[in-house]
Amino acid sequence: MALSDATRERLKGVSTATLSTALFKRGLRHQMIQGVLPLSPPGATSMVGEAFTLRTIPAREDLDGMAVLRDLANPQRRAIEECPPGAVMVIDSRKDARAASAGGILVTRLQVRGVAGIVTDGGFRDSAEIAALRIPSYHARPSAPISLALHHAVDANVPIGCGDAPVFPGDVVVGDADGVIVVPAHLADEIAAEAAEMTAYEDFVTEQVRGGQSIFGLYPPTDESNLARFEVWRKEKGR
Amino acid sequence: MALSDATRERLKGVSTATLSTALFKRGLRHQMIQGVLPLSPPGATSMVGEAFTLRTIPAREDLDGMAVLRDLANPQRRAIEECPPGAVMVIDSRKDARAASAGGILVTRLQVRGVAGIVTDGGFRDSAEIAALRIPSYHARPSAPISLALHHAVDANVPIGCGDAPVFPGDVVVGDADGVIVVPAHLADEIAAEAAEMTAYEDFVTEQVRGGQSIFGLYPPTDESNLARFEVWRKEKGR
Amino acid sequence: MALSDATRERLKGVSTATLSTALFKRGLRHQMIQGVLPLSPPGATSMVGEAFTLRTIPAREDLDGMAVLRDLANPQRRAIEECPPGAVMVIDSRKDARAASAGGILVTRLQVRGVAGIVTDGGFRDSAEIAALRIPSYHARPSAPISLALHHAVDANVPIGCGDAPVFPGDVVVGDADGVIVVPAHLADEIAAEAAEMTAYEDFVTEQVRGGQSIFGLYPPTDESNLARFEVWRKEKGR
Amino acid sequence: MALSDATRERLKGVSTATLSTALFKRGLRHQMIQGVLPLSPPGATSMVGEAFTLRTIPAREDLDGMAVLRDLANPQRRAIEECPPGAVMVIDSRKDARAASAGGILVTRLQVRGVAGIVTDGGFRDSAEIAALRIPSYHARPSAPISLALHHAVDANVPIGCGDAPVFPGDVVVGDADGVIVVPAHLADEIAAEAAEMTAYEDFVTEQVRGGQSIFGLYPPTDESNLARFEVWRKEKGR
Amino acid sequence: MALSDATRERLKGVSTATLSTALFKRGLRHQMIQGVLPLSPPGATSMVGEAFTLRTIPAREDLDGMAVLRDLANPQRRAIEECPPGAVMVIDSRKDARAASAGGILVTRLQVRGVAGIVTDGGFRDSAEIAALRIPSYHARPSAPISLALHHAVDANVPIGCGDAPVFPGDVVVGDADGVIVVPAHLADEIAAEAAEMTAYEDFVTEQVRGGQSIFGLYPPTDESNLARFEVWRKEKGR
Amino acid sequence: MALSDATRERLKGVSTATLSTALFKRGLRHQMIQGVLPLSPPGATSMVGEAFTLRTIPAREDLDGMAVLRDLANPQRRAIEECPPGAVMVIDSRKDARAASAGGILVTRLQVRGVAGIVTDGGFRDSAEIAALRIPSYHARPSAPISLALHHAVDANVPIGCGDAPVFPGDVVVGDADGVIVVPAHLADEIAAEAAEMTAYEDFVTEQVRGGQSIFGLYPPTDESNLARFEVWRKEKGR
Repeated sequence: MALSDATRERLKGVSTATLSTALFKRGLRHQMIQGVLPLSPPGATSMVGEAFTLRTIPAREDLDGMAVLRDLANPQRRAIEECPPGAVMVIDSRKDARAASAGGILVTRLQVRGVAGIVTDGGFRDSAEIAALRIPSYHARPSAPISLALHHAVDANVPIGCGDAPVFPGDVVVGDADGVIVVPAHLADEIAAEAAEMTAYEDFVTEQVRGGQSIFGLYPPTDESNLARFEVWRKEKGR
Repeated sequence: MALSDATRERLKGVSTATLSTALFKRGLRHQMIQGVLPLSPPGATSMVGEAFTLRTIPAREDLDGMAVLRDLANPQRRAIEECPPGAVMVIDSRKDARAASAGGILVTRLQVRGVAGIVTDGGFRDSAEIAALRIPSYHARPSAPISLALHHAVDANVPIGCGDAPVFPGDVVVGDADGVIVVPAHLADEIAAEAAEMTAYEDFVTEQVRGGQSIFGLYPPTDESNLARFEVWRKEKGR
Repeated sequence: MALSDATRERLKGVSTATLSTALFKRGLRHQMIQGVLPLSPPGATSMVGEAFTLRTIPAREDLDGMAVLRDLANPQRRAIEECPPGAVMVIDSRKDARAASAGGILVTRLQVRGVAGIVTDGGFRDSAEIAALRIPSYHARPSAPISLALHHAVDANVPIGCGDAPVFPGDVVVGDADGVIVVPAHLADEIAAEAAEMTAYEDFVTEQVRGGQSIFGLYPPTDESNLARFEVWRKEKGR
Repeated sequence: MALSDATRERLKGVSTATLSTALFKRGLRHQMIQGVLPLSPPGATSMVGEAFTLRTIPAREDLDGMAVLRDLANPQRRAIEECPPGAVMVIDSRKDARAASAGGILVTRLQVRGVAGIVTDGGFRDSAEIAALRIPSYHARPSAPISLALHHAVDANVPIGCGDAPVFPGDVVVGDADGVIVVPAHLADEIAAEAAEMTAYEDFVTEQVRGGQSIFGLYPPTDESNLARFEVWRKEKGR
Repeated sequence: MALSDATRERLKGVSTATLSTALFKRGLRHQMIQGVLPLSPPGATSMVGEAFTLRTIPAREDLDGMAVLRDLANPQRRAIEECPPGAVMVIDSRKDARAASAGGILVTRLQVRGVAGIVTDGGFRDSAEIAALRIPSYHARPSAPISLALHHAVDANVPIGCGDAPVFPGDVVVGDADGVIVVPAHLADEIAAEAAEMTAYEDFVTEQVRGGQSIFGLYPPTDESNLARFEVWRKEKGR
Repeated sequence: MALSDATRERLKGVSTATLSTALFKRGLRHQMIQGVLPLSPPGATSMVGEAFTLRTIPAREDLDGMAVLRDLANPQRRAIEECPPGAVMVIDSRKDARAASAGGILVTRLQVRGVAGIVTDGGFRDSAEIAALRIPSYHARPSAPISLALHHAVDANVPIGCGDAPVFPGDVVVGDADGVIVVPAHLADEIAAEAAEMTAYEDFVTEQVRGGQSIFGLYPPTDESNLARFEVWRKEKGR
C-alpha cells in the first residue's frame, strides 16, 4: 500500500502529538518511537516517509572487524544505497547508543539520494555534521564509536522494533520536534485525514485560548457553540 | 504562609545552585527535582512561585478513554483552570515520560491565566510550541503520546513527589537553567535572604577570579581580607 | 610521555569519531567517555589536552559538611589550582549527576589558569554560566545540588574511570560535539598522525558524496581509482 | 463492592498468569505490579485480598526524623493498625528500594491482625524474618535502611501507583510465585469465574501435553474434539 | 556444522566461566547472555544445545489480540513444535520482562519433545511450574502478563540478540548457575576441548587451594612445578 | 582504630537494619551498600570485619590481556593474598556486573586464609561453588565473564565507593540477609553497643507483637509501661 501524495502532504502538516491521539482512539498505544529526538530543530513541516528498516544484532568481534566494511553485501552499506527516495530509514539499534548507528558520510549519501529522513534508537557519530544537513535525523544521543564495536547489521526491510515501537516496512513514519511516530500502513490515509481535521480544530482552540477563553467546553468541545464558532473560523481561514 | 513579594523578588535573583547550598546547610539534601530541564533557555530571572500540585497514577484503560477529557471534574483539566496566578504547577508524573503530562493548549492557558511556570517529571507534547511561549516550563524530555495512555490524574494540591523531591502545596518552587528546586514554605523568607547575600559574594568572587585571583582563601573566604574587600565592592556596586 | 605540540595540533583537527576508528583498529573499544556532551556548541577545533584526573567516592555526612571547603588540602579545590595549563581535568563522579561535580567559579578559575577543558561523568551547576565561558566543558546534565551532598573528593592524578572509560593521568583527551575520547598516552602520536590522514580521506569522500557519488568502492576505497583521485584532490587542496 | 467469599476462594485457586489473560481480554494490560517477587515460596493457594493502600512521597529531613515514629497519627504506623483483616496492604514506595518500606515487627503485627498480605514496590528490611512468617509478602528486593531515610508516608486508602500498576482501594489483589496482579473491584466476580474455568482447561491441557499431545489445536482449542475430551475430563475429575 | 556428541559431552562438564575465558583468549568478549538466571538450581551438568532462535518485536494491538494464538502460522507456537530435540530455544525478547516470553504449557511441551533448554532475555509466566520441570530454563525474572501484551513473534531461526549477546542459529548454547553463554558454531569443538583441559587444571587448583596453597605461581601456573604436580594429579584422578 | 573482639561479637548479633537506624540517628544515611545480596542464606550471626578494599577502573584491552594474571604485582591477585584474616574484602566494581569481580578459586583462597567475607557491587563467577563455601559473600548477581573483560584492578586499601556507599579501609563491614552496611571505624564501638541494646528491645517487641499487642505505644515505646515490662523481660531472659 503505497503512500499517496495527498496523504504525505497532509501528514507534513500534522504533529506527532495529534497523530498519537488519532492512533490512541483506535487502540494503538505504542507507536511512538520512545527516546529519540531530532539532531537539529525541525523545519516547518513534519518528516514523512514510508519505513525502510535496517536490523542489527550485537556485534561479534570475529565477524565485525574493519574488513566487513569492504564487503558490498554488508547490509548497512547496502541499505544506504537501496533505501528508496522519499522513504525514511529506521534502524533497530536495540536502544544501544554506546556505538554509532551511522555517521556523516552515510547520512549525506541518504540526503543526496532523496531519502526523507533517518531514525535510530541508538546514536549517530559526526552529529554536528549531520545536524547541519537538510535531511531530518533522529537519535537518542551523539555517539562517536564506530558501529562495528557494538552493531552487526543483519538484514533490511524486515519488521523491527525501534525505541519500543513496532515498525513494519512500509509503515508511515512521521517526525517533528517531539520525536517520531509510526502509522501502520493500512491506516495512513484515514489517520492523515482525521489528524488534519483535528489540527484545524486545535489551531482554532489555540487562538481562542490565546484570546483568553477557558478550556472548559472548548477543548474538547463539550459546549457545542464552540463547534459553530469553529465552522465560522474555518471559513474565514479557508481551512 | 503566603509567599511575600519581597521574597519572590529576592528568589528571582538567585540560582538553584545557591539555594541548594543554603538548604544543604539546614540539612535538606533532596529538594532538587532531579532530571528536569527547561524547554527553552531561561530568561534573566529565575522562575518563582508557590507549588500547586497535580498527582497522577498509572492509567487504567477502562477509566482513561477519550471520554474522560469531556468531564469537567477531570483533575488535570480542573487544575489548569484552578492553579492560581503566580503559582507554579508541579505534576507528579512518576518520572514516566513515555506519555505526555500536558501539551501546548493547556500550557498556553496557564500562561494566559498568569501562572508562573509548569514542571513535570515526565514530558510535554507540543514541546516546540511550549518552548516558544513566555511561561517557564520544565520536563524530562519531549513526549508526544496522549497523557491518557499512561497517566490518570487523581487529585490536586496534595503532597507529591516530583523527580525524587518532596513537594508540598505552598512550597516555593524556583527554576533556572540548572533545573528546579523546592524551598519548604516555612523557610522561604530566610533562605531567600541568605541566598541573596550568598549571591552577592559569589558575584564578587567571580569578578575576582576573572581578574586572576586564586580560589584559595577567597572561596570560601578563609582569608578574611577578602571579606573586607567584598565590603568595599558591595558599596561600589550598591549591593 | 609529554604531548607534543605537533600532536596536539593534529588532534585539534580530527573528530572523536575518527579517533574511535583508529583506536578500534588497535583493539581498543572502550575509550569513549559514554554519556557526556558539551555544555555549549564546540568551536572549530577539538578540545585537546593531557588528562589530569580527580577521583571521588560517595560522600559521608560527617566528613562532607561545609567545613571541608575551608580546608586547603581538599582534593577538589587543590585540583582546581594544580591542574596544569593545557591539560584537561577529568572527574570520576561515578556517573552520578544528582549533585554537582563543580560550578561556575571553579570552572572560571580553570579557564583563567589556561586549562584546556573539563569533563565529568556527573553534572555541573551554574551550567548556563559555564556554557558562556570559552573553556570546553562536558558533563552528563546540569546539576545544581552542592557537590558535598554526594561526592567526596579523595585524590588527584590517579587512574580513574569516567563514563565507563579508563583514564590514566597523561592520556590524551579529545572532545568535540559527539563527546570525549581518551587516547592512551603512548599511542597519541601515531593515532594523531593516522587520524589526520583518515580525516583527509573522509573530507574527500564527503565532497564526492555531496557531488553524487555512491559510497560503494569509495568508502572504504575498495575501488582503487578513488585512491588515485584522492591523491589528485590532496594536491589541489594542499593536504 | 465487597469481595465475596466465593470469589475469594476462586481466586485462591487461579494464577496471576491466568488472571492477566482474562484482564487482557477486557483491554486491561497494565494490572501487573511490575518487579515484585515473594519473599518466600508461595503456598498452595494464591494470596487474595482487597487493597488497602499506603502512599509515600520522598522524605524531607526536617519532617522525617526519629520523632515522627512516636506520632500516633503517622500514616505508616496507623495503616498497620487499621488495615482490615483479610485485606492486602499495598504500599506505593515509588519503586525506590534504597530504604525500607516496612520491617519485621510491622509485618508480624499485620499477620497477627489477620491481614492477607503485604506488597511494596520498594523493599522490606528484616527480610529473612519476614520470609519466615506465614503472611505472604512481596517486594522488589531486601532493603535494610530505615524508611525515614527516603519515604514519607502521607495518606492511606487513596488510589496509588505500585510497580507501574494503578491500585484503587478495594481492588482485588492476587499474588503467586510470578508476582502480584490487581483486579479492578467491579470485575472481580466475573474475572474470578472466568479464570477458574480457564484454569480447569489449562490443567487439562497440561495433562495432555505431559502425555505427548501437540499444542496445535489444543492450546487454544482450535480443534474442537479437544473441547469434547475436556468435558469428559472435567466429569472424571469433578471440576 | 552439527554439534558432535563428543563436544556436547565435553561442554556438559565445563562451566560458563571457563568458557568465557576460552572465548576471551580468542578476542570474543560479548558472548555471555547478560542478566539471565536459571529458574531452578542447575543439575550436575551444564545445559548444552544448538541455538534455535525466536525473534520478537514490540506488539501492535491490532495484530496481537487473542485471535493470533489460534493461527497455526504464529511463529511462537510453531517454534515450540519445530525446535529440534537436543536444541536450546533462545528467545529475543528485547530485554523486556514486563510480559511473558512463554509459560508452563509451552515449556512442558518443549520438555516432552526433548528440547535441551529454553532461554529468554525477558521473563516466563508460571515460573514455579517451569522451575519444577526437568528442562533447564533461564530468564530475567518471572513475568505473568500474557506475551501478546508486549511481544509480537516475527520469525524463527534467524540471527538475534539475546541479553546483549549475538546468537546465530546453530551456535552452541551452554548454561549453568552463572547463566548462559553462546559459543560460535565453528569454534565449538576447539573451545570444548580447551575448556575441558582448563577445567581439569582448575579442579586441581581448587584442591590445592583448599589444602592451603597460595594462588601465586599456581593460578596461573607461573611456577612450573605446579604443572608437574598437575600431571601427577591427572594420572591419579584418571583425567 | 582496630576492631575489638567485644565489638565484633556484639555486631555479629545485630542486623543491618538495626545498624542503619543507629547510623541514621547520627546523620549517616548512605552507609548501606545498595543492591548486593548474599550468595547463600546467611548463618546465625552476621558477617563482621574491617574493610580491606580493592579498587578497579574500566579495563583497557592492551593492558588487560591474559598475561596480566601472571604478574605477581597484579593488585587483584595480591589483594587475595594480603587481605588480613578477619577482614572483609570490599571490591569497587563500579556497579558493573557484566564481568566477574572474582571467582571460586580466589574466594576459596580467602576462606582458607581466614578472611571474614567478600563483597562486590559487581558479580562473582562460579557462583554456585562460592555459595557452597562457608565464607559469607555478597554481590549484585552471578557473572561468568572473566574480570579482565571489564575490570582493571588499580590499587588496594584506599577509600572506595561500593554500591553507592563510601568505604574507607578499616571501616567495619556487617552483612546479613538484607545486605551489607558500612560502619565508620571511629563509631564502631558506640554503634555496636547501641545496636545491641536496640536489638534486645526489638526482640522484646517482636515477642509482644506475636502475643497480640498493638505497636502503638510499644514501638517506639511512647507508653512508658512498656519500658518497665521490657526491664522485667530482660532480667528473665538474661539480656
